[in-house]
Amino acid sequence: MSSKNKGVSPSRQEDFPAWFQAVVREGEVAELAHVRGCMVIRPWGYAIWELMQAELDRQIKKSGASNAYFPLFIPLSYFEEEAEHVEGFAKEMAVVTHHRLEADADQPGKLKPGGKLAEPLIVRPTTETIIGKSFAKWINSYRDLPLMVNQWANVVRWEMRPRVLLRTTEFLWQEGHTAFATEEEARANTEQMLEVYREFAESFLAMPVVTGEKSADERFPGAVTTLSIEAMMQDGKALQAGTSHYLGQSFAQAAEITFLDREGERELVHTASWGVSTRLLGALVMSHSDDVGLRLPPRVAPQQVVIVPIPRGDEGPAVLEAAEALAREIGAAAFDGTPVRVSADLRDREPPDKRWEWTRKGVPLILELGPRDLRDGVVALRRRDSDERPESVERSAIVDSMPSLLAEIQDSYHRVAAERLSSRTQRQVADLDEFREWFDTDPSDASAGGFLRAPWSEAPETAGLLEDLKVSVRCLPSDQDLPPDSRCVLTGKPAVVEAVFARAY
Amino acid sequence: MSSKNKGVSPSRQEDFPAWFQAVVREGEVAELAHVRGCMVIRPWGYAIWELMQAELDRQIKKSGASNAYFPLFIPLSYFEEEAEHVEGFAKEMAVVTHHRLEADADQPGKLKPGGKLAEPLIVRPTTETIIGKSFAKWINSYRDLPLMVNQWANVVRWEMRPRVLLRTTEFLWQEGHTAFATEEEARANTEQMLEVYREFAESFLAMPVVTGEKSADERFPGAVTTLSIEAMMQDGKALQAGTSHYLGQSFAQAAEITFLDREGERELVHTASWGVSTRLLGALVMSHSDDVGLRLPPRVAPQQVVIVPIPRGDEGPAVLEAAEALAREIGAAAFDGTPVRVSADLRDREPPDKRWEWTRKGVPLILELGPRDLRDGVVALRRRDSDERPESVERSAIVDSMPSLLAEIQDSYHRVAAERLSSRTQRQVADLDEFREWFDTDPSDASAGGFLRAPWSEAPETAGLLEDLKVSVRCLPSDQDLPPDSRCVLTGKPAVVEAVFARAY
Repeated sequence: MSSKNKGVSPSRQEDFPAWFQAVVREGEVAELAHVRGCMVIRPWGYAIWELMQAELDRQIKKSGASNAYFPLFIPLSYFEEEAEHVEGFAKEMAVVTHHRLEADADQPGKLKPGGKLAEPLIVRPTTETIIGKSFAKWINSYRDLPLMVNQWANVVRWEMRPRVLLRTTEFLWQEGHTAFATEEEARANTEQMLEVYREFAESFLAMPVVTGEKSADERFPGAVTTLSIEAMMQDGKALQAGTSHYLGQSFAQAAEITFLDREGERELVHTASWGVSTRLLGALVMSHSDDVGLRLPPRVAPQQVVIVPIPRGDEGPAVLEAAEALAREIGAAAFDGTPVRVSADLRDREPPDKRWEWTRKGVPLILELGPRDLRDGVVALRRRDSDERPESVERSAIVDSMPSLLAEIQDSYHRVAAERLSSRTQRQVADLDEFREWFDTDPSDASAGGFLRAPWSEAPETAGLLEDLKVSVRCLPSDQDLPPDSRCVLTGKPAVVEAVFARAY
Repeated sequence: MSSKNKGVSPSRQEDFPAWFQAVVREGEVAELAHVRGCMVIRPWGYAIWELMQAELDRQIKKSGASNAYFPLFIPLSYFEEEAEHVEGFAKEMAVVTHHRLEADADQPGKLKPGGKLAEPLIVRPTTETIIGKSFAKWINSYRDLPLMVNQWANVVRWEMRPRVLLRTTEFLWQEGHTAFATEEEARANTEQMLEVYREFAESFLAMPVVTGEKSADERFPGAVTTLSIEAMMQDGKALQAGTSHYLGQSFAQAAEITFLDREGERELVHTASWGVSTRLLGALVMSHSDDVGLRLPPRVAPQQVVIVPIPRGDEGPAVLEAAEALAREIGAAAFDGTPVRVSADLRDREPPDKRWEWTRKGVPLILELGPRDLRDGVVALRRRDSDERPESVERSAIVDSMPSLLAEIQDSYHRVAAERLSSRTQRQVADLDEFREWFDTDPSDASAGGFLRAPWSEAPETAGLLEDLKVSVRCLPSDQDLPPDSRCVLTGKPAVVEAVFARAY
């Protein structure tokens, strides 16, 4: 995009975290507002989330799950019952203690809490406990299995150091909860949903990921196996973009979810759960955006094409009319199985302001149309994925080329991100010194660092080492490549697994 | 439906409120669970809600509004600022006072709230205050208007006497909030959205409604005008099914939402808001269900057709195969612009149990297929809207007739509800004695009572009279029919308006 006269400030190189906030703000994605740690997801950002939701919802339903809705509040006693559950959880939760607002007799014009609850209620940080108890009621025999439920909801985990989209006190997510007669089926569901997330991240968000299993320390509390997808942001840090857990029978035991099997024996079910959240919006921003602003892969762009008319002089009305006609024609074309999302921006604003707005909001294609273009039968085409100058394209060819152009842009975002993931994944580090050196980067330098794949012993003493370096084991990648007799990169002891190490969001 | 051997208990005549609860439970729509006043919306009920959402969302977006998301929590001080707002509100709200769960040192194994907040947070009962403050930030000039935002969210109003779907502490809704430069535009939006709700209720839910304006006492606190749609349930009671408010400039004043007009003058915007909630699920149940269970108009039925195979003896596999083939064929037909929602129920259960399940869940059409039907080239067709015996229909004709059959069922539910609304609207009551007499019905008699349309003086003293009778002014209907020199039905004084009086949910 050539209009480099404007852009967000600072740049990625100058200050990556501040750049991220500026892109989110200028792109009108979201803002922290009203309550510390809570965010407003603005219409443009929410439209991106709705596109994500629609696609994921389709895949979730295809997997056999049905949506449902469970209460926002969880009785405090439910947490006491599941000690293990709460132990691993950050206990930073919003606690409701009163059910009334009353006038404060001591301070005229002021209000105070009244109507103290006999038992405090917790605003759900996740809904496992509630859903488990409902499952226990709904499941009687093997005929009721599998039971596969998904919920789209808001959850709350009190954040001391909030960051918009990445770490917010309230966020939106989907949480799938499933129950099966056998371990085999539950494990298959866990893997199936991870694959849904991987495919979604790669093909919808143009965001390549590493799939793998979490190490014991990073597992969801109480889970037997936690799988995740890990994406690499432009500063080389990892962002966990989705998780899928096989929970064994421990949650079934805690919630007493049993069924009569075909032989008439009462058995515990095997459960799984899986989820992604509005963090994905943060991941999307940090995967593709540039120093100009937001950049959106077409599949997840609320507007894929915006036409900016430049109505000058007598030909003004003709230009506006031509812009509308072009939008209608492009909207009749299909990309990704649906009509191209296109609009002509006819608002009462200056054309450069419009161009800048759609640019910082990440619209993949901006078409500009002035009196001279109209006479010449061309439009000026700006690709948001390119730094090239706008290209003059034949009006007659533009509609037909739209689907392939959008596909090309979708691919180009994926290609760049895949190239980054590949080139910034280090596999040649042999020992602790090299490990330290590789992670000893200037924290403000967004071009340094990345993922480090190396053999690992899983020895407990490595935890402290990693903590000191602010590095974590992101996952034990699915495509294990551990030569025989490998040595742990951290301890030199025999390695048992190949791990991906990285700094992370 | 002829299988009257089963049904919910009690019947509508025996105990309407208990019947309602039984239909909701047996139809697997929702249940009160876990926390007093909170509900679980079960997969079947949630699928109905999703169909409603999808259709309403389409209409809302067509009106020009965009979805967004605002924080769940509202600082207590926001309520203090808007004294008028809070005055009219039930002050029964969930108050968050702590942000941590801690081990209780005094009681081992117990947890207690910790980390007291400097300022308590209210779980949103509605989001006016928050959205108003965001609007104030986002709106600068006339170029930013109109601003039209909608939110799908959960809200909480503490309920002392909860009833599933009708009055729950937490419920789901959409709330639209719009800002305009002029009163005219804001009023037009208020009316436009009421019309969206009316059309939705009538044509999607098959639920005819009365549209009108709320009297001053029943207005949304702070609103200049509140419009509503009022539906009549099978017991003759009114259920307010959607509201749309013109808020004037008072909310703009409170939140300081101003804009520079074309002349460079700073002006207050005019705002409107409008919403419907999961109460609509309750309205749907009470509009159409019978003593057998739930009945769903096809447009809002998650499954419009279910095929129940009756696989006996050697021909079992052939029957199952034929059921699947029939489902595929029917699914290729379209109703209401989308593929017919059909499935073959191949689960490992007895056919009568399946039939009963789909019957009590309200599926419009159940097709049964046994070995003999297969040989004869027929299927047995059960219409949920009819008490007739199942009809034997030619297999070859069934697919083609599906769209018209579903349209016929949709119409038949609407026809019955419209006939009820019409026949149970009393217009012949002349004075207070007759008024009292008309409302002096046995509360358990679902066939007595209804709406009463009569001239009204709007005199303050009528409020107490109505309260004593547990009757309220539902609305001042849009189609005013007030003869000259009419006298108030309650006081005999000159009437100024025609009103609809009723008992209400």
